[in-house]
Amino acid sequence: KAARTLWFLILMSLCLFITVCRASSPQEEEDSAMQNIVTEKRAEESHRQDSADLLIFILLLTLTILTIWLFKHRRFRFLHETGLAMIYGLIVGVILRYAVHVPRDVGTASMGCFVNISPATLLVNISGKFYEYTLKGEISANLVNDVQDNEMLRKVTFDPEVFFNILLPPIIFHAGYSLKRRHFFRNMGSILAYAFVGTVISCFVIGLLMYGCVMLMKQFSQLGGDFFFTDCLFYGAIVSATDPVTVLAIFHELQVDADMYALLFGESVLNDAVAVVLSSSIVAYQPQGDNSHTFEVMALLKSFGMFLGVFSGSFSLGVATGVVTALISFFTKLRDFQLLETALFFLMSWSTFLLAEACGFTGVVAVLFCGITQAHYTFNNLSPESQDRTKQLFELLNFLAENFIFSYMGLTLFTFQNHIFNPMFIVGAFLAVFVGRAANIYPLSFLLNLGRRYKIRSNFQHMMMFAGLRGAMTFALSIRDTATFARQMMFSTNLLVVFFTVWVCGGGTTQMLSCQRIRVGVDSDQDNSVTDGSERRSTKQESAWLFRIWYNFDHNYLKPILTHSGPPLTTTLPPCCGPVARLLTSPQAIENECQLKDDDSDLILTDGDINLSYGDITVSTDAMGAHTNSGRSFSGTATSDDLDRELAYGDHELVMRGTRLVLPMDDSEPPFSDSIRNLRM
Amino acid sequence: KAARTLWFLILMSLCLFITVCRASSPQEEEDSAMQNIVTEKRAEESHRQDSADLLIFILLLTLTILTIWLFKHRRFRFLHETGLAMIYGLIVGVILRYAVHVPRDVGTASMGCFVNISPATLLVNISGKFYEYTLKGEISANLVNDVQDNEMLRKVTFDPEVFFNILLPPIIFHAGYSLKRRHFFRNMGSILAYAFVGTVISCFVIGLLMYGCVMLMKQFSQLGGDFFFTDCLFYGAIVSATDPVTVLAIFHELQVDADMYALLFGESVLNDAVAVVLSSSIVAYQPQGDNSHTFEVMALLKSFGMFLGVFSGSFSLGVATGVVTALISFFTKLRDFQLLETALFFLMSWSTFLLAEACGFTGVVAVLFCGITQAHYTFNNLSPESQDRTKQLFELLNFLAENFIFSYMGLTLFTFQNHIFNPMFIVGAFLAVFVGRAANIYPLSFLLNLGRRYKIRSNFQHMMMFAGLRGAMTFALSIRDTATFARQMMFSTNLLVVFFTVWVCGGGTTQMLSCQRIRVGVDSDQDNSVTDGSERRSTKQESAWLFRIWYNFDHNYLKPILTHSGPPLTTTLPPCCGPVARLLTSPQAIENECQLKDDDSDLILTDGDINLSYGDITVSTDAMGAHTNSGRSFSGTATSDDLDRELAYGDHELVMRGTRLVLPMDDSEPPFSDSIRNLRM
Repeated sequence: KAARTLWFLILMSLCLFITVCRASSPQEEEDSAMQNIVTEKRAEESHRQDSADLLIFILLLTLTILTIWLFKHRRFRFLHETGLAMIYGLIVGVILRYAVHVPRDVGTASMGCFVNISPATLLVNISGKFYEYTLKGEISANLVNDVQDNEMLRKVTFDPEVFFNILLPPIIFHAGYSLKRRHFFRNMGSILAYAFVGTVISCFVIGLLMYGCVMLMKQFSQLGGDFFFTDCLFYGAIVSATDPVTVLAIFHELQVDADMYALLFGESVLNDAVAVVLSSSIVAYQPQGDNSHTFEVMALLKSFGMFLGVFSGSFSLGVATGVVTALISFFTKLRDFQLLETALFFLMSWSTFLLAEACGFTGVVAVLFCGITQAHYTFNNLSPESQDRTKQLFELLNFLAENFIFSYMGLTLFTFQNHIFNPMFIVGAFLAVFVGRAANIYPLSFLLNLGRRYKIRSNFQHMMMFAGLRGAMTFALSIRDTATFARQMMFSTNLLVVFFTVWVCGGGTTQMLSCQRIRVGVDSDQDNSVTDGSERRSTKQESAWLFRIWYNFDHNYLKPILTHSGPPLTTTLPPCCGPVARLLTSPQAIENECQLKDDDSDLILTDGDINLSYGDITVSTDAMGAHTNSGRSFSGTATSDDLDRELAYGDHELVMRGTRLVLPMDDSEPPFSDSIRNLRM
Repeated sequence: KAARTLWFLILMSLCLFITVCRASSPQEEEDSAMQNIVTEKRAEESHRQDSADLLIFILLLTLTILTIWLFKHRRFRFLHETGLAMIYGLIVGVILRYAVHVPRDVGTASMGCFVNISPATLLVNISGKFYEYTLKGEISANLVNDVQDNEMLRKVTFDPEVFFNILLPPIIFHAGYSLKRRHFFRNMGSILAYAFVGTVISCFVIGLLMYGCVMLMKQFSQLGGDFFFTDCLFYGAIVSATDPVTVLAIFHELQVDADMYALLFGESVLNDAVAVVLSSSIVAYQPQGDNSHTFEVMALLKSFGMFLGVFSGSFSLGVATGVVTALISFFTKLRDFQLLETALFFLMSWSTFLLAEACGFTGVVAVLFCGITQAHYTFNNLSPESQDRTKQLFELLNFLAENFIFSYMGLTLFTFQNHIFNPMFIVGAFLAVFVGRAANIYPLSFLLNLGRRYKIRSNFQHMMMFAGLRGAMTFALSIRDTATFARQMMFSTNLLVVFFTVWVCGGGTTQMLSCQRIRVGVDSDQDNSVTDGSERRSTKQESAWLFRIWYNFDHNYLKPILTHSGPPLTTTLPPCCGPVARLLTSPQAIENECQLKDDDSDLILTDGDINLSYGDITVSTDAMGAHTNSGRSFSGTATSDDLDRELAYGDHELVMRGTRLVLPMDDSEPPFSDSIRNLRM
């Protein structure tokens, strides 16, 4: 077939290209070395080489895209695109490592220096001319010779900060921006529990287990360097970040149950944020005594304070820029010019990251909450074109960044030069990761189920256990600092953990879903009514008080102030605030309110929840609803939960009727009351 | 008004932000200096500072966007967004320069070194630890002290290569991708003449005039350094690149006559490409003797050869990757997965740039031709969603990059530290730029009019003369190398040239258009018929032989092979090639052929031009058309040109009828003939 031929052609040309461009470059460099060597020439050469290196990655991504297409075209779901990207990365890594031999580079010189600090900028006087050098980083003394030998492999190695400053932000922002907000907020309590409590549990369980493992290794004298308890905890933190990519892509494709999706997605997204801040807090743990690896209460408290400070700081920065964007798009009529609108949205989202980094908070965390805020408020103010544009833009950036990271992961397995693979540590890590995930999911689910009316069933729990893949965040956190022995061993081990979970757990998702009998093929729109019903009931339970308070506040005050959607403030604020309300309410909100009538699903949800706070009529409709049965069949087993759902399905219509009767109306404003009355009639 | 309050608020907060974040950082640095200074801390500090610097630019862009919106909202056209971005850049530059005082930075150390070449990587042994430094560039000896003093200003200065490698490519690609191809190819001969011959003329005229100016300055001993003839020529080359942004945005908004638009747009886009290659060829001019500034035939020939080689190499690379993308999207069914399709498109376009740079060609030029090829072929294979997505993506990238460059331009007027403003040189440069543009446009237009039937009228010529703005490309070329006295003076002068042309010529475009009585408000679709008619006639003239040959070849062979649009190969290839044709023709092309019937404007154009090669019937329709008069009134004066147009308008319908009768049909393929026959009936 033509497509296959094309595919092989590209694969071959890539291999050829790598060999040629890597092999040809030193020859050119020698040529230029024989000439009168000018700095310009060197810089040009280096730029040319950089272009070629970047080109390798781009071709790799192109190849991945073509193969993904082939897989999708044939509905082959055992290997996700990220897994594929890793495989291609591995192949290129092998070629670079073994097939290409580059003679020793002349471009590196070693010199002594008598300043006692390392300056950020170095001016070097070389035979009368001044050259400026910038600091790249410290190199441990025993690697100095390696540096000179393996210049080539080092060149395809990116600055680890690239991941944090360029590649991760779009991924995390996209995760926040594409959160299915309704289901997310419904399950907010459980998600927060999994993300915060769960990650901390997982971190400490893994840390303790690894400390035991390290102790054991010391007994057998298998350990080649220092590995302290803080290192173990750090390892626990970085390996606790689960990846929201691979499994969720499959979930999305198979249209898995929306609550399952929301739980897993919300958990893995927030997880990353917690893990980042947790790991930086652990690094910040520094007792004041001589021995920096003893236990000290003050240092612990400081670390804990730092965790809280950085997390809440990043959170509020993210939310703040989101709100500012919402306000800008609310008060200007920017929606008439989609390009400006999209550009503003993009810039504001990016500035969140920079602002957080400039303030010393964590940009990645800020970007996540900015994404959620943007999706919740700003999105409603955008023109339909910009809504599409921004979604597509971040989808594309996310796709590119993700596949780049995963293919780079494959590459580093062979090109990274300080790998330390220790079999005992690796076995211990795999075990610890497994136990840590179990200690996170099962006990927490048990506790949560005590409070939830709508239980997290055991098959959901097994699925969440299975779906704890490690991905981009774990990798980025591990590669960020590979200076010490402990960090190098962690990095090597984490690579294997990521490979294993992405290939095995990612590849087995479909099997696991059918094995656990989790509903698939649920149309999200069709599903709304079912889940709305059951969820709304669960909001009446104690477990959902958080959601209820938040929802009412958000719907009645924040949404009207920040967006063009939602009810006009004039109806939600108490009558005494009439003038303020009228000032803040845009005419468009009134219009929108009228249009909402057509948009059923939103209206039902919205009004239904207003109900809850103004009257308890839904309690009675619920009781009535228990007698109607829609007879809809589910693919799951007929447990009592399913019965619950079917009942919920019935009361849906009644709530709708109830809503129209009970909605709180404020007729004190003559100019608006007509349109509102029209709406209700 | 609320919007204005918001706007002032943001402006104020930006100023405050700059002052705070620039002033606070040294204090922090001192703190860390008092502690036990660790490299890690320094790197973190530097990263934080970089984030803050980048944030300044992002807030600047945000502000620009909001103000643009305000201008557009009020239909205020005297200042284009690029001009506005420059003004904001100037303001921030003033603040940075005069309002913020930063004490001397401790992060720079100067040291002697005894190697005789400057290595790309430097390993420095600082009190037992090894640090790695990378080469940033050479600094002239008299600036070494400045470097240490003005660390702060230097930090907001980007590496000039950023413009070439990151900001210019999307701008140039977008220019190529959004070219109105039909009108471009119609006026191809004229555009190529303006771009190639015109730029070379302009370069040499400006170079000679500047040489005269420099000689004069030497007489009055106003010259503070060396300024050779090659420098003058180089100046001529970089200042000959006209900007396709500002004027064309206004043209687009006012819907100016499509031919005027195509001429100006095509010229300024190709212009940039020619100027880049020309300037690098001039730099490469190096006679072998001791005095490197004498005239030598061999060196000249070498430079000329380099010009040809680099230009054609970049051209073919750009076209090649475009064709490869078209082939990939032709043979795969990637269009079912829009995300993959868009990602592939983006990556292939980017790889053009990298490939060209890696091969030693000019990436910017390659990207331009890649954009044109992508628009001409690949675009037709994309799904409608991806067509929108790619357009919007590159539109956004272009917008951001452009405004970034222009606001950076404003900033550098105050923050760049080696400005050399020489009044005589500046006056000379303004004169030379004016004369150079005139020497490009008027003589060439006269020559072209000898060959063109559809003349370039004098008001068009005046408009083209007036619209020769200098912009991003001139700036990027000037800032790329500011090491010598000559280059520094060029850079400072070019900044002024850009400011003047963008503000004065850009702001006066609307006035100039009405003053020259050039038609505005021409709906492109409505205009098709008029211009098609007159243009098609002009294709029969000698001047359009290039276009005719190209068009037939493209339409009959390239389009069917590379895209799903165009006639099936089975109808265009001679019958003897039947089997080959059937192999290469996709079923979709046949389908498309049927759908084309609805898409009138394309069919008319297409078939009309096929006509020209198969029979001369249009000549007679032309004669007949001369008697019909549609009576449509134009906003221009009633010159003979307008009569021409009105005549052309009349023969439009006849050509349509003629087309249907004359279209070459190949009935040898039974399976397809039905559908084709249906189409024609």
